[in-house]
Amino acid sequence: MSKNADTPPDEFALIAQIFAPLAAGDPGSFGLTDDAAIISSRPGQDLVVTADMMTAGVHFFADDAPDLIARKLLRVNLSDLAAKGAKPHGYILTVALPVDTGMPWLRAFAEGLARDQAEFGINLLGGDTTAAQGPLCLSLTATGWVGQGGMLRRSGAQAGDDIYVSGTIGDAGLGLRVRRDGPLAGLSAQQNEFLLGRYLLPQPRNQLGVALAGAAHACLDVSDGLAADLGHITGTSRVGAEIQLLDIPLSRAAKTALDLKLADITELIGAGDDYELLFTAPPAQAQALRRIAAAANVAICRIGRIIAGAGVVFVDQANAPVTLKKSGYRHF
Amino acid sequence: MSKNADTPPDEFALIAQIFAPLAAGDPGSFGLTDDAAIISSRPGQDLVVTADMMTAGVHFFADDAPDLIARKLLRVNLSDLAAKGAKPHGYILTVALPVDTGMPWLRAFAEGLARDQAEFGINLLGGDTTAAQGPLCLSLTATGWVGQGGMLRRSGAQAGDDIYVSGTIGDAGLGLRVRRDGPLAGLSAQQNEFLLGRYLLPQPRNQLGVALAGAAHACLDVSDGLAADLGHITGTSRVGAEIQLLDIPLSRAAKTALDLKLADITELIGAGDDYELLFTAPPAQAQALRRIAAAANVAICRIGRIIAGAGVVFVDQANAPVTLKKSGYRHF
Repeated sequence: MSKNADTPPDEFALIAQIFAPLAAGDPGSFGLTDDAAIISSRPGQDLVVTADMMTAGVHFFADDAPDLIARKLLRVNLSDLAAKGAKPHGYILTVALPVDTGMPWLRAFAEGLARDQAEFGINLLGGDTTAAQGPLCLSLTATGWVGQGGMLRRSGAQAGDDIYVSGTIGDAGLGLRVRRDGPLAGLSAQQNEFLLGRYLLPQPRNQLGVALAGAAHACLDVSDGLAADLGHITGTSRVGAEIQLLDIPLSRAAKTALDLKLADITELIGAGDDYELLFTAPPAQAQALRRIAAAANVAICRIGRIIAGAGVVFVDQANAPVTLKKSGYRHF
Repeated sequence: MSKNADTPPDEFALIAQIFAPLAAGDPGSFGLTDDAAIISSRPGQDLVVTADMMTAGVHFFADDAPDLIARKLLRVNLSDLAAKGAKPHGYILTVALPVDTGMPWLRAFAEGLARDQAEFGINLLGGDTTAAQGPLCLSLTATGWVGQGGMLRRSGAQAGDDIYVSGTIGDAGLGLRVRRDGPLAGLSAQQNEFLLGRYLLPQPRNQLGVALAGAAHACLDVSDGLAADLGHITGTSRVGAEIQLLDIPLSRAAKTALDLKLADITELIGAGDDYELLFTAPPAQAQALRRIAAAANVAICRIGRIIAGAGVVFVDQANAPVTLKKSGYRHF
């Protein structure tokens, strides 16, 4: 126990006080008392493994609320599991903490994790806690289960497939502008709050993703922007895509921003951090997909179709191709 | 492809050029073209999962050779797999790169990984590459296989067990001094080089660890220092330990440092980064352990025994308890 309750204790006390309670739900974590965790094999199932690293000043602001930083870190990985059709299992967390990190920050960080662990059915399995000589650096490796050979791939799209996206697109990009520059003039306080929330706390679509595992041909989650991520599907699937720009689902707040010319559609489909599912499925699945989406309580929207060839074409109401300024947002 | 071959390309090119070749050996990586990797279940086996984070200025010097940074990162995780009796399978790597990281650095880093992947039979499965606004931050999650329920635990030690350690103890702590302050006066150039190497490039004992899975009661790898790590075994096993100070195996270089009073035994058993296996086994296993060690081509040394009670007692030749200044080195 640290002498000063507001300064971090040493690594061993930090694990026992802050992180071990998060690992109590899975015996494979051994309560974080050993060098490693175990994940027992499940015959007929594959373990899906994904990881994201987030650093202060690049992926979040150092003064963002610690519980929201924690939840976003967990959720961007949960979103990858959703996109692969995997049911969340457990995660490994490594953190490099600036030397001035205090116990209140760490407690709030752990509370954020605890809240989302309960919501999404995932447990801490293990990890590492260390000091940083620079800004906060976080890495999370998430695992989930799918039936053997059943992981949803980027590469499964086929000519003739419909293209769908869940939720609404472009909100998080506008939310980042709100976080950085303050409220967008002309939008209501509620709309600004909504956009900011979409940036700070993405909503991974895990229930939808698991249900899509048997129904969709290809799937990923929109993290680099709709346009760039669609390019990842067409590129790995060796097909093309035609997207009806007007069919891309937008929130009221985003529509207002468009109407007021605070942003254009190119920005919205180029902005990252949506964490919605982008997937393709044959037209025969249309009704099944509606049922799946209704059961998951998530709106899905058909925005176009996979075609033979290569590349992504955006078309207007008259089916005329529209030229876009840029094709995607890149973190790096 | 970056215009300037000496500056890093964007994230997608970096993955394709630097990291994808490291993932070619395991189809579960999908060549790093998807959001996630898979590890197929192996009926009757458990997947052992462990992670370590390393940051410049804390775990290594920013100007250490990039191939050695890469190999140490991989090896400290391989050492955890060894300590748990697990056969290496695959790993997830996340890196936050300072903005001035160039392609030569990245190529050397990847070459280090490639070399040790071949030596230890492990493949890159996936990960994340991002920018850092601070020093280099690296996180690696390693996986390996053990028979179901067969992971070597810290908590399995029993009164009456012999205590063994592989290799030699304290070299890496002295090597850190060489790295930081230059050669130790009185030691030969070869001895200084040896100590430095033991710090920069640990030797994980994977062959020994896998063979110990059926023979040892408890095991971990010495990363916090022999004294502290022995405390982890006795603490989780609820037993005590008696260690013969003179039986702790030392290298010629470390013995010379002791003779010249450049260090004392307390420093050697308190220094971290040895990455030797510390394990306990019943006396009836003594002959089997000798065969196992010979087959793995690793020296093992009996240094004491597990006793009822609690805590670690160090004794001298006359079995008289020795009081030590400090009980272990802590990274954090």
